[in-house]
Amino acid sequence: MIPRYSRPEMVAIWSPETRFRIWFEIEAHATTALAQLGVVPQEAADKVWELGTPATFDIDRIDEIERETKHDVIAFLTHLAEIVGPQARFVHQGMTSSDVLDTCLNVQLVRAADILLADIDAVLAALKRRAFEHKMTPTIGRSHGIHAEPVTFGLKLAQAYAEFARNRERLVGARREVATCAISGAVGTFANIDPRVEAYVAEQMGLEIEPISTQVIPRDRHAMFFATLGVIASSMERLAIEIRHLQRSEVLEAEEFFSEGQKGSSAMPHKRNPVLTENLTGLARMVRAYALPAMENVALWHERDISHSSVERMIGPDATVTLDFGLARLAGVVDKLLVYPQTMQKNLDRLGGLVHSQRVLLALTQKGASREDAYRLVQRNAMPVWRGEGDFLTLLKADPEVTRYLGDAEIEEQFDLGYHLKHVDTIFARVFGA
Amino acid sequence: MIPRYSRPEMVAIWSPETRFRIWFEIEAHATTALAQLGVVPQEAADKVWELGTPATFDIDRIDEIERETKHDVIAFLTHLAEIVGPQARFVHQGMTSSDVLDTCLNVQLVRAADILLADIDAVLAALKRRAFEHKMTPTIGRSHGIHAEPVTFGLKLAQAYAEFARNRERLVGARREVATCAISGAVGTFANIDPRVEAYVAEQMGLEIEPISTQVIPRDRHAMFFATLGVIASSMERLAIEIRHLQRSEVLEAEEFFSEGQKGSSAMPHKRNPVLTENLTGLARMVRAYALPAMENVALWHERDISHSSVERMIGPDATVTLDFGLARLAGVVDKLLVYPQTMQKNLDRLGGLVHSQRVLLALTQKGASREDAYRLVQRNAMPVWRGEGDFLTLLKADPEVTRYLGDAEIEEQFDLGYHLKHVDTIFARVFGA
Amino acid sequence: MIPRYSRPEMVAIWSPETRFRIWFEIEAHATTALAQLGVVPQEAADKVWELGTPATFDIDRIDEIERETKHDVIAFLTHLAEIVGPQARFVHQGMTSSDVLDTCLNVQLVRAADILLADIDAVLAALKRRAFEHKMTPTIGRSHGIHAEPVTFGLKLAQAYAEFARNRERLVGARREVATCAISGAVGTFANIDPRVEAYVAEQMGLEIEPISTQVIPRDRHAMFFATLGVIASSMERLAIEIRHLQRSEVLEAEEFFSEGQKGSSAMPHKRNPVLTENLTGLARMVRAYALPAMENVALWHERDISHSSVERMIGPDATVTLDFGLARLAGVVDKLLVYPQTMQKNLDRLGGLVHSQRVLLALTQKGASREDAYRLVQRNAMPVWRGEGDFLTLLKADPEVTRYLGDAEIEEQFDLGYHLKHVDTIFARVFGA
Amino acid sequence: MIPRYSRPEMVAIWSPETRFRIWFEIEAHATTALAQLGVVPQEAADKVWELGTPATFDIDRIDEIERETKHDVIAFLTHLAEIVGPQARFVHQGMTSSDVLDTCLNVQLVRAADILLADIDAVLAALKRRAFEHKMTPTIGRSHGIHAEPVTFGLKLAQAYAEFARNRERLVGARREVATCAISGAVGTFANIDPRVEAYVAEQMGLEIEPISTQVIPRDRHAMFFATLGVIASSMERLAIEIRHLQRSEVLEAEEFFSEGQKGSSAMPHKRNPVLTENLTGLARMVRAYALPAMENVALWHERDISHSSVERMIGPDATVTLDFGLARLAGVVDKLLVYPQTMQKNLDRLGGLVHSQRVLLALTQKGASREDAYRLVQRNAMPVWRGEGDFLTLLKADPEVTRYLGDAEIEEQFDLGYHLKHVDTIFARVFGA
Repeated sequence: MIPRYSRPEMVAIWSPETRFRIWFEIEAHATTALAQLGVVPQEAADKVWELGTPATFDIDRIDEIERETKHDVIAFLTHLAEIVGPQARFVHQGMTSSDVLDTCLNVQLVRAADILLADIDAVLAALKRRAFEHKMTPTIGRSHGIHAEPVTFGLKLAQAYAEFARNRERLVGARREVATCAISGAVGTFANIDPRVEAYVAEQMGLEIEPISTQVIPRDRHAMFFATLGVIASSMERLAIEIRHLQRSEVLEAEEFFSEGQKGSSAMPHKRNPVLTENLTGLARMVRAYALPAMENVALWHERDISHSSVERMIGPDATVTLDFGLARLAGVVDKLLVYPQTMQKNLDRLGGLVHSQRVLLALTQKGASREDAYRLVQRNAMPVWRGEGDFLTLLKADPEVTRYLGDAEIEEQFDLGYHLKHVDTIFARVFGA
Repeated sequence: MIPRYSRPEMVAIWSPETRFRIWFEIEAHATTALAQLGVVPQEAADKVWELGTPATFDIDRIDEIERETKHDVIAFLTHLAEIVGPQARFVHQGMTSSDVLDTCLNVQLVRAADILLADIDAVLAALKRRAFEHKMTPTIGRSHGIHAEPVTFGLKLAQAYAEFARNRERLVGARREVATCAISGAVGTFANIDPRVEAYVAEQMGLEIEPISTQVIPRDRHAMFFATLGVIASSMERLAIEIRHLQRSEVLEAEEFFSEGQKGSSAMPHKRNPVLTENLTGLARMVRAYALPAMENVALWHERDISHSSVERMIGPDATVTLDFGLARLAGVVDKLLVYPQTMQKNLDRLGGLVHSQRVLLALTQKGASREDAYRLVQRNAMPVWRGEGDFLTLLKADPEVTRYLGDAEIEEQFDLGYHLKHVDTIFARVFGA
Repeated sequence: MIPRYSRPEMVAIWSPETRFRIWFEIEAHATTALAQLGVVPQEAADKVWELGTPATFDIDRIDEIERETKHDVIAFLTHLAEIVGPQARFVHQGMTSSDVLDTCLNVQLVRAADILLADIDAVLAALKRRAFEHKMTPTIGRSHGIHAEPVTFGLKLAQAYAEFARNRERLVGARREVATCAISGAVGTFANIDPRVEAYVAEQMGLEIEPISTQVIPRDRHAMFFATLGVIASSMERLAIEIRHLQRSEVLEAEEFFSEGQKGSSAMPHKRNPVLTENLTGLARMVRAYALPAMENVALWHERDISHSSVERMIGPDATVTLDFGLARLAGVVDKLLVYPQTMQKNLDRLGGLVHSQRVLLALTQKGASREDAYRLVQRNAMPVWRGEGDFLTLLKADPEVTRYLGDAEIEEQFDLGYHLKHVDTIFARVFGA
Repeated sequence: MIPRYSRPEMVAIWSPETRFRIWFEIEAHATTALAQLGVVPQEAADKVWELGTPATFDIDRIDEIERETKHDVIAFLTHLAEIVGPQARFVHQGMTSSDVLDTCLNVQLVRAADILLADIDAVLAALKRRAFEHKMTPTIGRSHGIHAEPVTFGLKLAQAYAEFARNRERLVGARREVATCAISGAVGTFANIDPRVEAYVAEQMGLEIEPISTQVIPRDRHAMFFATLGVIASSMERLAIEIRHLQRSEVLEAEEFFSEGQKGSSAMPHKRNPVLTENLTGLARMVRAYALPAMENVALWHERDISHSSVERMIGPDATVTLDFGLARLAGVVDKLLVYPQTMQKNLDRLGGLVHSQRVLLALTQKGASREDAYRLVQRNAMPVWRGEGDFLTLLKADPEVTRYLGDAEIEEQFDLGYHLKHVDTIFARVFGA
């Protein structure tokens, strides 16, 4: 996470201010629950809420205490006691630091997931709008980077829409994975704290209770969360690379929006480079990489060790901030993408009709040619076209072995673009609903 | 995937025999659908089923054809034509190789997922049985590898149970991700094949239709599948490492079952090493590693490139066979684990009562000591015990600052083991149901 | 490692036959050394060599013994005793299994490295030959996929040559990392075996002694080895992607060799797809992925645990066989690459002279224009060309602000291709030597 | 990279101030070289140095310009022109942004490597001092976490020393990889700039010339750099995990230094947790993860794309700052490690003499027992000891099959600790020199 690739709302989730505020809420809700159970005085809970809610937690002061105690939660509690006074001794009763830390991390991840869901919604909205705009804009479909058969530009975007709709669903699942709360004490036995405290805090914080925790909330949940972000980032990369391909000089079927005043190159002023999508390609590599330490974090020793903590202090912000920035950028790129239907048509016509070869092949077999013969006939007329030595339609009409099966009109029929687009409606209905 | 770490049922999914059989089924179902639509003669479809169903596909012959054509599906279709005769020319009408290949891969992954689900069920069953067996077997809970407070061995296993129950749910989701079928032609437009063929084949093969494919089924699905296997492997690693810790000489609370005739070391005949769980630790690293190329596979160029194929030819078998082997091994390890409750008790008593320090701390604060004072009092009596210089209970009773708050009976009360285990039932009910 | 992507020589290194033969050599050399030291009878050593050298080790028999003992080296030694007779009891004296296993693994990796070095040499030879062939073949240089300024096709290959020359050097280093031998006993103290045995075996096997081993040879060595393979694979990917780009329909400056009889697509017979380089792209993902478990293998517990073993049984063959196959394929692709200089020239001319924009920019500043003014002038004449509305040279000559600084001849001078190629000799001398 | 795990010297390398200062040096040296070649006026170069050297570059102003131009180098040059005045138009003549950016990145990485080398030196110094301190401190060697045979604590540290000495050598190699300079213009052809400028700048900046660049310095160099950091981090993890094991309650042979005032647990005041080495374990996961995007960065498109840039903006600081922090922490941990020789001895005696089982085995075979018989005899006397039912020495003396081969004195001889330590000097000489 670096400022260059960060957006303030996501960054704020990971600020010390937010963290301490969440800690406060967890501790204060727990104190309320303890008071309801008669474990601590009600006035202690009241005082905590009364003095803690408006308080500004002094981060420098907390840091100072932590430098001495080398323990962040104790430092916070000590500072809270400075604000709340003697009643603070009823705070954190029977709890362990991880009750606060792990529940807080999950609150942060849930909030991050909510922002990411909004980001995906923006990507989806942009994709849908542009997909319908170009629903019937013909363009060449390419496999292996080689011209294959016609598709529409809307179909390309519809594919991306379907992919991001899946990603949305995955992210909803990943959010659910980490939306749990644990207030279960030093090794998760509730020895010193009633399970009802956990239930109360969970409800107040919008979380589910963690069925069984062992000082820590189990890290398979977080591994799944970050792995899911890695998959979403990979989809982001796919769309970014598609756009980079479309913008390359020889293709130029689409371009990232290029603002006035923007300079593409210090040396070559004519250049308009797909720098946003290249950037997204790099960011995807990072988000993907974070999935691995998250998985390595799962195997904590016994009831817990703290090796996961440094990893999460980094990838928590790094993965969510970077993906948020990337998705927002992607939504903007799609939204403002410059699309050039004329170039698409020009590229489509480039191969002298070769894109219709499969139709010719099928027509030949329908008329009784063996598959092998049909293949041979098509290929021997395709090769000269490929080498720039003629036009596929003309060559076919002149090949006596071909005309033995197909008349001129029948051959021409195979070159109709509409033929390829007849099911676009069907596919759009599948993707966007009827 | 190597024979040493393979089980035959999973290996069989990835054999050429299975692959060609699935290809045949896809092609034959598609021919049936085409016949129903009147595109090809019904007798062609009948003949394909009649002659293809009992046929043994000659893998060497297919390989031979592929060496010439450098194309595996064409090689198969050529061989099928050798079996079926001239009617074979109606097979594969309007389809593209990827229709067969991608649908086949998904059938294989779905079958692999089914085996893995059964594996997880075996792990769950073993964990549940042993968890209830040791529901109330006290053992020390450890954080940072340091004794913390008592838990039960059943709780350890219940945690693992809950984790694998989550993994089961994740795997069901991952199976759903890849349970799709695409028969959509060269670039996914259904130009030469009716979408109803896809619907028919999907239903026959137990799959959903892929809403939008582009010659290929999109690889975000497979990325999610393999990432999920990586998370499951990480949970496997966690449990394996727990057992390795329990078996180390100084702890020895549990041991892998050690069969007669087994030799632990060529040099040190007394040794009984946790080699199975060490092995699982290594296997987990492999399954986790496969998630990455799967994610890199997502960003195919345009409507498809074939860079994913070599990756999947490897990680398809490697990840599923390795995880299957690992989970089966894990289920056996748990099932036959030698558990030593007496050693657990001995270790629990090791620290001279220090595990009760938090209770003493709480009792002190309940009686009016400030948190800071209570902490100081507990720590100054704990440190000598830690150094082996005395017993915690005795020292506390002899500390006048402590006895200012707590009488002897009150101090002793804090040393009751039952106190820690009072919520084990609650937790078991959460994990295993009421 | 799968047969499809394997070459026999590398596969053979990892066969049980090879492994047992290496084990035999290590054990037999050690016995010789022990005899020289007077620890075991000379006739024992002689008998081992005499009966073991011509012996065919019965893999099924060894497997059978291992199934009972669950220990591979003991199984081998038991089988060796069946061959050698009672003198076999002097074999393996004071050694531990890992002495054999780890030294054997290193022998295998060293042999694998030697094959990979030969592979790189083949890649280098092909690159050099083709680089000189096309040393002066002009082609457009592209940054961001956008036309930049002219280069030559030879320069592209020279860059790849320099990169693979670096990879060669890295591989020499990686080979040196793993070329060590340990015969140091159960925990590396030489308690039961004289260090001179290790020195003797090391020399006989072409290895260095491991300065300090702890039952195992430390795995940072192997991590470095596999990480290096990952870097080499990434270079392989770079060159593969370059070729894939050059072959795409709109570019078509080069093509993979396309053999007679090869079929590009079951549906589209005209297609000639860069399937070999796409395949290499996928293989690179695999080799890269193996670096990670190799790094996770470093942190073995105490003097050793065996978690590394399952990883190495897989990635040992998988990484070396896959990279060997990939590099050999790459050498062939480069060697037989179809290069189309005419298309290169056509593409070079595509942008109506825009590739000369920087030269114009510089000429303007040389004549006194401020950098900002020059940039603005060039950009305003470049934009219409970019949109296909005119020719750069013509527009510049018609711009009075431009002609204030440069006359017609001076403008034309900036459009000279030779200007860009004047240092090709210099660069070739740097890369290939004078 | 987060402040919590950062040290100022390494952070400073990645500050905007440092970056702009390096840019300035590169540009100014290049201007000097251009002046020497007569391409630009000498007074321009002089003015640049004169006004630029003492200048404070205004980062906010540069950011402001970049927001408009969306190009960082142009923004810097514009700001430099504000400082230097009209002579600034001679700066950057014939260069491209990447000439500055890539050379700057390499300068930063070289400086980072120098700090890391100093870090490793500190780790080595601490390891060496403690290794000699405990050269002859006996401790049990463990394989699989199970007691094996005696070693010394000094040997453990000597192993780590040898490993970090290798890492030092690797880092020197990695530093060399990235110590190159490219000033070769838009596509690396030196079209607009004389290669002598590059040679001059390289020399001034302490770098080698990049033999062939293509706008960018090839990224295989950086991949190797970051992969090397990943390997070093893995060694850091190994040593950290060793210490974590030694500190666990049941072992307690060593402890991280525990300062006054430090609190181990908010709930359990007696706890002294190995939090520093747990932290290092997590940090290692991160540094390792960064190797992957660095490898993915290698395959840039054609002469360059900019996808590597966002990755490097993150992993450049993240990997070097995190590893620097980790190594410095590791040096401190080793330096101040609390070592408990008495506990080592106690643990060594724990298994009732079983650690001598191999010696007994060897003695039996030396006296004529077959290997299989000897193994059986040792194992049957070892098993009761393992179960806590007796003492190995006593049992052996009472076993008539054993005493058939060995007398009492001969048996006792096998239990001598000195026997195991006789080659410690040899090993120390290998590791630290004679």
